[in-house]
Amino acid sequence: MITRMSQLFLRTLREDPADAEVPSHKLLVRAGYIRRAAPGVYSWLPLGLRTLRKLENVVRAEMDALGGQELLFPALLPREPFDTTGRWTEYGEELFRLQDRRGTDMLLGPTHEEMFAATVKDLYSSYKDFPVTLYQIQTKYRDEARPRAGILRGREFVMKDSYSFDMTDAGLEEAYAKHRAAYQRIFDSLNIDYVICKATSGAMGGSASEEFLAVSPTGEDTFVRATEGDYAANVEAVVTPPAAERDVSGLPEAVVHETPDAETIDTLVEWANGAGVTVDGRAVTAADTLKTMTVIVSEPGVEEDELVGVLIPGDRELDVKRLEASLEPAEFRLAEGEDFEKYPFLIKGYIGPKGLNDSGVRVLADPRVATGTSWITGADEKRRHVVGLVAGRDFTVDGHVEAAEVKEGDPAPEGQGTLTLARGIELGHIFQLGRKYTEAFDMQILDENGKRAVPTMGSYGIGVSRMMAVLAEQNHDDKGLKWPVAVAPYQVHVAVANKDAAAMEAGDTLVEELDAAGVEVLFDDRPKVSPGVKFKDAELLGMPFAVILGRAFADGKVELRIRGGETHEVAADEIVDKVIELVRG
Amino acid sequence: MITRMSQLFLRTLREDPADAEVPSHKLLVRAGYIRRAAPGVYSWLPLGLRTLRKLENVVRAEMDALGGQELLFPALLPREPFDTTGRWTEYGEELFRLQDRRGTDMLLGPTHEEMFAATVKDLYSSYKDFPVTLYQIQTKYRDEARPRAGILRGREFVMKDSYSFDMTDAGLEEAYAKHRAAYQRIFDSLNIDYVICKATSGAMGGSASEEFLAVSPTGEDTFVRATEGDYAANVEAVVTPPAAERDVSGLPEAVVHETPDAETIDTLVEWANGAGVTVDGRAVTAADTLKTMTVIVSEPGVEEDELVGVLIPGDRELDVKRLEASLEPAEFRLAEGEDFEKYPFLIKGYIGPKGLNDSGVRVLADPRVATGTSWITGADEKRRHVVGLVAGRDFTVDGHVEAAEVKEGDPAPEGQGTLTLARGIELGHIFQLGRKYTEAFDMQILDENGKRAVPTMGSYGIGVSRMMAVLAEQNHDDKGLKWPVAVAPYQVHVAVANKDAAAMEAGDTLVEELDAAGVEVLFDDRPKVSPGVKFKDAELLGMPFAVILGRAFADGKVELRIRGGETHEVAADEIVDKVIELVRG
Repeated sequence: MITRMSQLFLRTLREDPADAEVPSHKLLVRAGYIRRAAPGVYSWLPLGLRTLRKLENVVRAEMDALGGQELLFPALLPREPFDTTGRWTEYGEELFRLQDRRGTDMLLGPTHEEMFAATVKDLYSSYKDFPVTLYQIQTKYRDEARPRAGILRGREFVMKDSYSFDMTDAGLEEAYAKHRAAYQRIFDSLNIDYVICKATSGAMGGSASEEFLAVSPTGEDTFVRATEGDYAANVEAVVTPPAAERDVSGLPEAVVHETPDAETIDTLVEWANGAGVTVDGRAVTAADTLKTMTVIVSEPGVEEDELVGVLIPGDRELDVKRLEASLEPAEFRLAEGEDFEKYPFLIKGYIGPKGLNDSGVRVLADPRVATGTSWITGADEKRRHVVGLVAGRDFTVDGHVEAAEVKEGDPAPEGQGTLTLARGIELGHIFQLGRKYTEAFDMQILDENGKRAVPTMGSYGIGVSRMMAVLAEQNHDDKGLKWPVAVAPYQVHVAVANKDAAAMEAGDTLVEELDAAGVEVLFDDRPKVSPGVKFKDAELLGMPFAVILGRAFADGKVELRIRGGETHEVAADEIVDKVIELVRG
Repeated sequence: MITRMSQLFLRTLREDPADAEVPSHKLLVRAGYIRRAAPGVYSWLPLGLRTLRKLENVVRAEMDALGGQELLFPALLPREPFDTTGRWTEYGEELFRLQDRRGTDMLLGPTHEEMFAATVKDLYSSYKDFPVTLYQIQTKYRDEARPRAGILRGREFVMKDSYSFDMTDAGLEEAYAKHRAAYQRIFDSLNIDYVICKATSGAMGGSASEEFLAVSPTGEDTFVRATEGDYAANVEAVVTPPAAERDVSGLPEAVVHETPDAETIDTLVEWANGAGVTVDGRAVTAADTLKTMTVIVSEPGVEEDELVGVLIPGDRELDVKRLEASLEPAEFRLAEGEDFEKYPFLIKGYIGPKGLNDSGVRVLADPRVATGTSWITGADEKRRHVVGLVAGRDFTVDGHVEAAEVKEGDPAPEGQGTLTLARGIELGHIFQLGRKYTEAFDMQILDENGKRAVPTMGSYGIGVSRMMAVLAEQNHDDKGLKWPVAVAPYQVHVAVANKDAAAMEAGDTLVEELDAAGVEVLFDDRPKVSPGVKFKDAELLGMPFAVILGRAFADGKVELRIRGGETHEVAADEIVDKVIELVRG
């Protein structure tokens, strides 16, 4: 097909939009692919819609190939199924809620586990109907607290969500593996630089879960990668290797010291080294000290909140997101003023694990706090610390928790070197949900023995519109976008940059020939636009190949420009074959 | 492609759903095309989604052919542009309104005039950019008071909406004509029985407007057709031919009579004929009497409501919708108890136009009330009527109004015989909006003379999901659906109804061959389902052609069933060619 720029509904902008900070946002707006309608809500202009549809088709082909069946649920949903799973409230402010004219509660679907589970329950009743994988490519709604970066994190966005239903755990694992492989094919085919991260399951529930993160400095998610090996994980999912346990016999006794000026970890270390305190014969560092934090935990369904102690080595900050993920589904907050009044045994600034043990407070510790490890920590008295307090001898740990920050250089698991920190954009997420949703809907299926059994479920998402932003992030230069051939709005950009009538005629013939060969052509036929502006637009719009009928046309030559690559001079009568060859890859 | 029914996510139902009244609703649910998610909100199951997408593509092809450019606006929209045109409030309860987490008002788009006008204004500034036609195929939302009949009138539905922008009225007329022709091609290609009705523009504003109504007894819209000629109109748009004016000189004088028992039109006619009253020398009928109704009219932007008299011939009822359309944008209600207290000169049951004239009340009359016509009507005194009250002599008409019902047999315009009444389903609507929206957004475009001019706009919609219901309404029998080849989910249904392993093998080969020839096949390969159930399902699902490998297969023969037509016995080795021939039409 041929689209003529003289007709195309497009205005390119030379200036970045005022609200744009990241390259994909700036370029997609400047090149007229998208246009802001409201915060986090964008219109798809003709070029943008073409690329979006192509991306949908790349995803659709892989979903069909793994046996997925496409259907389409409404975006406007009733409240009831979300009450069944509790997500009407659990989803919090991110859910767009509304009422219809009768005052009935409704919502705009952020994801569709409930609808799929309820529908499979309605239609299917026998193990013979399983396994089944269903998917949709649909507009979804989430009222993000901070919509940002154009279509990178929108409030209305296009998502592919699929759901597998299996009678056995092995079946779920197979469906999960098929999706994982399909996602790899999708992202690989588009040359996206991404990692597969072990992830926590968050509000979705379920067990195994991995995130596909596009590597990008503009990403909102921090992840870690091993320096040697392919380990990668969401920071929330990083598991701290437990310290080796030591025999406590023969370790020096704990001694309480007056520490009048040691109110921070730094001043405590300074005091210890000034006072000649050593650990295993060496000088004290922050890693030898232990922070004892107190948090108030609410378990869902438990009325009374619980005071809990959290121990982390003094050289690390508390990572609130990691602690959240570790305690989920319970929620927590840091203990504050009135909590200290309620629990007078908490001596603020000098809380230690021993005092918590003595008062019957549950103590959760970083895995580095293993039996036999010795610590400098609060002595549960004002202006006093204790040196040589040994876990498993002087205090008891009731369980482990991932609450400490992950640092560059931390050891990677399984001897894969150390961890490096990087930023990424979540492209996809695959979950082995298990039976959380099927049980909530009481999906009873007759198994081979005529007994009732509950199927197990997987849920798999790809942010299709976000993928477009990711491609723009990873494929651009300071002049504009650089699309992969497979999803460029058009495969080739033809521009006539020569005022000669013969050049325009030749351009017409060229685009007709390309069209006849099945090539999608964007034709810059604008008669009164200067060559300079045409070149700039071609670079900004970012088709992978451009053919320029310029000055050399008089000598029977045209320019073939590879976007972001070299420019070749090609004989005018060879250009059609050359372009077809490039487009077909 | 081949879809195997042993895998397909489908359960056909033998019973009609309890809430379904019309055939399309019953059959689309029973055949597993759609499934109710909430009142007026439906999910598209695999078969339904295939037909929906094909319908979208039929529409898309015609929109592209007329030069339309596809883009896609959000469904979640900001309030502001709808404040600019006043539709935030004017739309009333049909608009889904919601607030985001910051309390900002938003809405779900019922139609997108505002967004398109605002966007064209932003991108374009010169007459050289015009004309432009833009369209989208999008999910829309309207909180219908009475969602009904499945996808026939849903609250979430798929619509194609296009918008034309022209610098001249002639340009708008051309864009309108192009859309009109494209709509005809679309509906003709699907063999839809429809009429093009002159329509009123309603809340959209603007001048010329036509509705494409599918003829169907289940339709909600009543329209009229001429018995001779192609005139058709929405009942609201029917224009009553004015009665011929007569010279008033020489007409008998008006005489007031005591009419103690004439409280209805029937008893008034009875009284008149009993009293020997005649009109032009013949007996009195209801058509000689005049009903004087009183309504309270509110003009937008006018604080005080107005009492208005509405005159209609006594043989006709008031048609509220026609009066609404006629008074628009003003709204009205019938005068009631307290209004009669406020206007004591209104003698209930005996109001006549003369009394209204005397009290300075504006009088709007049916066009049959022409100068020189003579009427029997209320005498503005209890139990009295006046005979021979002549319009233009005894009372004054301030204007004409279409308030009387349209009746079967009324004269059609331009000598096209008489009118017949029928019911229809609105498939499409085309509007010459004019400058209502472009002026609201102050779209100033530089014209050829360097002066600012406001473009004129057209708006054109097709209910794509509703079109699927219309096709089901017009193409079914008591056994099931009957899809046109172009939009059937699959072109051919192949069923193996023979337990012989050779038959199943032959079925496999057949579908592979059809697939290789590009035919879309639904293959009923279910091993344990009886032939009877397979036949019933094939009829219910409604593919245009079915091939049955049944008993005669042993003799090298298969059955070719034309849905709703004959069954042929075809040699097994000829069936592929035969099907390809049928499918290619």
